[in-house]
Amino acid sequence: MDTVKPYVIGLDLGGTNSVFGIVDARGNILSTTAIKTQAYPDVNDYVTAGCEALDPIIYAAGGIEKIQGMGIGAPNANYYTGNIENAANLAWDGIVPLAKMFSEKLGIPVAMTNDANAAAMGEMTYGVAKGMKNFIMITLGTGVGSGIVINGQVVYGCDGFAGELGHVTMDRSGNGRLCGCGRKGCLEAYCSATGVARTAREMLSTSSRPSLLRELNREEITSLDVAIAAEKGDDLSQEVFEFTGKMLGEACADFTAFSSPEAIVFFGGLTKAGDLLMKPIEKSYNEHVMPIFKGHAKLLVSTLDGAGAAVLGASALGWEIK
Amino acid sequence: MDTVKPYVIGLDLGGTNSVFGIVDARGNILSTTAIKTQAYPDVNDYVTAGCEALDPIIYAAGGIEKIQGMGIGAPNANYYTGNIENAANLAWDGIVPLAKMFSEKLGIPVAMTNDANAAAMGEMTYGVAKGMKNFIMITLGTGVGSGIVINGQVVYGCDGFAGELGHVTMDRSGNGRLCGCGRKGCLEAYCSATGVARTAREMLSTSSRPSLLRELNREEITSLDVAIAAEKGDDLSQEVFEFTGKMLGEACADFTAFSSPEAIVFFGGLTKAGDLLMKPIEKSYNEHVMPIFKGHAKLLVSTLDGAGAAVLGASALGWEIK
Repeated sequence: MDTVKPYVIGLDLGGTNSVFGIVDARGNILSTTAIKTQAYPDVNDYVTAGCEALDPIIYAAGGIEKIQGMGIGAPNANYYTGNIENAANLAWDGIVPLAKMFSEKLGIPVAMTNDANAAAMGEMTYGVAKGMKNFIMITLGTGVGSGIVINGQVVYGCDGFAGELGHVTMDRSGNGRLCGCGRKGCLEAYCSATGVARTAREMLSTSSRPSLLRELNREEITSLDVAIAAEKGDDLSQEVFEFTGKMLGEACADFTAFSSPEAIVFFGGLTKAGDLLMKPIEKSYNEHVMPIFKGHAKLLVSTLDGAGAAVLGASALGWEIK
Repeated sequence: MDTVKPYVIGLDLGGTNSVFGIVDARGNILSTTAIKTQAYPDVNDYVTAGCEALDPIIYAAGGIEKIQGMGIGAPNANYYTGNIENAANLAWDGIVPLAKMFSEKLGIPVAMTNDANAAAMGEMTYGVAKGMKNFIMITLGTGVGSGIVINGQVVYGCDGFAGELGHVTMDRSGNGRLCGCGRKGCLEAYCSATGVARTAREMLSTSSRPSLLRELNREEITSLDVAIAAEKGDDLSQEVFEFTGKMLGEACADFTAFSSPEAIVFFGGLTKAGDLLMKPIEKSYNEHVMPIFKGHAKLLVSTLDGAGAAVLGASALGWEIK
């Protein structure tokens, strides 16, 4: 057996910034470096700039021979191919074999997946899902993403794109909210950060109920504004979170019918609302889950949440590739 | 490596009958025998009677040393424990360690799972899903069951009960049809054989449209009656299948967002309706599935359907146990 090397590299590739980190097996981030994703319309220049930025922190960690592998979390990343495929938020058109490009440049194995799957890997490797073989990660950010782990493996499906739980249909009337995917009534259209702001705006315009949110420019209301108002006891804002949590609980009850996970782990900006969100999720989940599953799955909030979480998640992929 | 033996035993344990079969690796059923499940209120007597019935067909197959293992498909069977747990349709109360009991009596390894998971195993071992690593089996019988295969393994979840896709909620209004599980609006309440008959009765009572079904005693209408009338061109009956297929297509679009299968395989009595059911499923699935998944999953009808299918499904478990 080869000796496992002490570190991995994680790359959180976002539309604006790309953050690289060197991480040990316990999930400590030794060092980070970053480049602007948008500054490199040619992906070859991006890879060159990334490797140049990595150089000094790899050197400080003892050189590339101390690095087991690299994991990348990126939009539209396909785990099977190591390609980014037609990412709308990135300047690179078509199919970009980014894993292969970094692997050739650095001389280490590189794997890539999307952000939510990376988050699930991170949670399983370093976080609250450590040791779990069956859990579902729900990421509540600008969108609603998911990473599903079954029998200790992230589920990629037949094409690398499995785990799009933000796009199960919650409103089947045909008049549901329009989602970014082009369909109507998706979970993401209601329970993402943008969905929460939208719910608040809808409630403000369809009633004349008093609310702290009325002091704000309605079109600029964010989920954070709603959370702050709710914390201050604002009824309407609390109702926004109840509505959101109720729907998430219903959706999670369906997810449990699929894979009966030991935990559903929530991750991302919206979880900062804490009990405002989690209590309604739990109440609704317990009301809607099939009796045989009652009490089996824990509803948890990620412990990796924070600035380094996405880098950690990506880095976790680096341990499992050969 | 041990030599794989040429045969397995499959037991399809139903509320009324228990059918045993000896099966080879290609899915040929060499011989079968059966006992009445209901005739044995004591499970010890059941196992004794089952083994006595098996004796001559095992002997004819060359003796127990030719048998690799035994698989059982049974209601409320837990794959992890090998127990039947609180099965409402069986006379045996509480927890029944049936796999262990047969294993000790026969001297071969025995595994057990529920009917739908057994069907998925059968399809993967001998049927249209042969060679597939990711597919979903939907069984359309008295209820709606499912068996989910991911990375070549049936999904059992944290507790052995995963894959209850008949109990995802399709009507979230709170006024959906009451389901046998005690909740409202489940897929099973609409798309099982009993659900189809219920839809027909509802359509007959809420309209005065002419229909061949009006010649029948309304309370005794079955899904087969609806299929026969639809085949004869009965508008209302065709609409029942369109409604059923539309809902199944919507549900399957959500299932794809979970595991992105290469196929969804339909199995069970209702599939005998053929295109009457499959065309509306396909139309609705293509309309509702998320764009990135379009065209990836095949919608198939089981080729194992028929008298021996349940025995074959159960027997497939016998190959994988040690």
